[in-house]
Amino acid sequence: MTEAQAARLAMRRNEWTGYTAFRVPGYVQCNLVVLPKADAHDFLVFCQRNPKPCPLIEVTDPGDPHPSHCAPEADLRTDLARYVVYRDGVREAEVTDLVDLWREDSVGFLIGSSLTFDDALERAGVPKSKEVWVLETRLQTVPAGKFHGPLVVTMRWMTHAQAVIATQLTSRFPFNHGAPLHIGDPGIIGANLENPISGEPVTEIPEGIMPVFWACGVTPQSVALASKPGLMITHASGYGFITDLRADQFCIP
Amino acid sequence: MTEAQAARLAMRRNEWTGYTAFRVPGYVQCNLVVLPKADAHDFLVFCQRNPKPCPLIEVTDPGDPHPSHCAPEADLRTDLARYVVYRDGVREAEVTDLVDLWREDSVGFLIGSSLTFDDALERAGVPKSKEVWVLETRLQTVPAGKFHGPLVVTMRWMTHAQAVIATQLTSRFPFNHGAPLHIGDPGIIGANLENPISGEPVTEIPEGIMPVFWACGVTPQSVALASKPGLMITHASGYGFITDLRADQFCIP
Repeated sequence: MTEAQAARLAMRRNEWTGYTAFRVPGYVQCNLVVLPKADAHDFLVFCQRNPKPCPLIEVTDPGDPHPSHCAPEADLRTDLARYVVYRDGVREAEVTDLVDLWREDSVGFLIGSSLTFDDALERAGVPKSKEVWVLETRLQTVPAGKFHGPLVVTMRWMTHAQAVIATQLTSRFPFNHGAPLHIGDPGIIGANLENPISGEPVTEIPEGIMPVFWACGVTPQSVALASKPGLMITHASGYGFITDLRADQFCIP
Repeated sequence: MTEAQAARLAMRRNEWTGYTAFRVPGYVQCNLVVLPKADAHDFLVFCQRNPKPCPLIEVTDPGDPHPSHCAPEADLRTDLARYVVYRDGVREAEVTDLVDLWREDSVGFLIGSSLTFDDALERAGVPKSKEVWVLETRLQTVPAGKFHGPLVVTMRWMTHAQAVIATQLTSRFPFNHGAPLHIGDPGIIGANLENPISGEPVTEIPEGIMPVFWACGVTPQSVALASKPGLMITHASGYGFITDLRADQFCIP
């Protein structure tokens, strides 16, 4: 059994209930969105128009919870540790499985996560960031059908020299948000460090630190709040889906 | 008026009736697919599952012939020189506009074309190939809904050293088919050089020449023949849509 399979199984059995950030290195991690088929086309166009926050790794056939391309044995209803349910734009609940919520017309969207390249960054000489913050920005996504909303980013801290290496390296991962969206002053993209979606609030960036920002697959959750689809289920921020794909082999097409 | 705008206008007025290969250098060129909304979701999933032959530059809203992202002033009904109409898997007709065929539920898919990077290749020291052949292969696409069929490739001829440069350079253009799908012996991918879809038949590859193959946006035309959708319209091979996007600025996300 691979580490990816073991991790998914542990989540399925509720033995693994924590974050996936910095865990199971080497495998492509994904953000999840589940929508009824009636909303799937609009959301697919939304992803096409917003490839930085929403690079698609796989779209499942309606009703089929098994992602046949990236993890055929997996079950999207059980193999993530934590999900969030949005109804009519309200964050209704956090759940640990979708057994009762998955429908015959449910379509799963797996969106490449930047958690995928943290291991590759480390091997390239960029140590783990103190943490990976998730932040809303002033930037807007390109709308499609009912879907619209602000762009969400991740922020990592590194030295100025490491920021160059990180830009080079993550350019090889366009399906995991690709090159940084922004480097340096958070104010330029309207990222409020004192009020992150996830991570400890930051009041001051230390001397010698360059914050580096990538478009983030948590964007659909802000889109759910803004666009108010009837039902939209996502992973919880930091609780990714672990695929069978090897990160080093899943790069530029 | 830019060269791209002038080219589209000339096609709209039927003053430009020829190929776009090697023309209007510097602008992103696209392959076109037009489908009724009822088939659009399946085709969009098909493109997601086959990003090498079908990298999406834009998907239009139903009924809207204007690609607001990549060429807002353009009209997909008139601004290509030549289109092909497929009905129930039969290549029914070639037409020079879609004025009578465009419907209220028509969705346009613009797929990045490898014709985009020929100019960049030349600037990088890889002279124009003798021609750009289009060839069917033994490789199959990943199906989605009703859509399935063989993968189509383009072939360019270059020296072995130039093949390395071409691989490096085209890796920067994932929205225009990206890195080569294959280098060298055409037999390995089942490409029959004696019976190309477009280009002169080839009986022997000259000494010192390395054929280099990229996934091709003509693939949907083979998919139309194999999958037999009720109505599918495409560009004619070699007659691309010229966008306003600058090729050098539209690279890795």
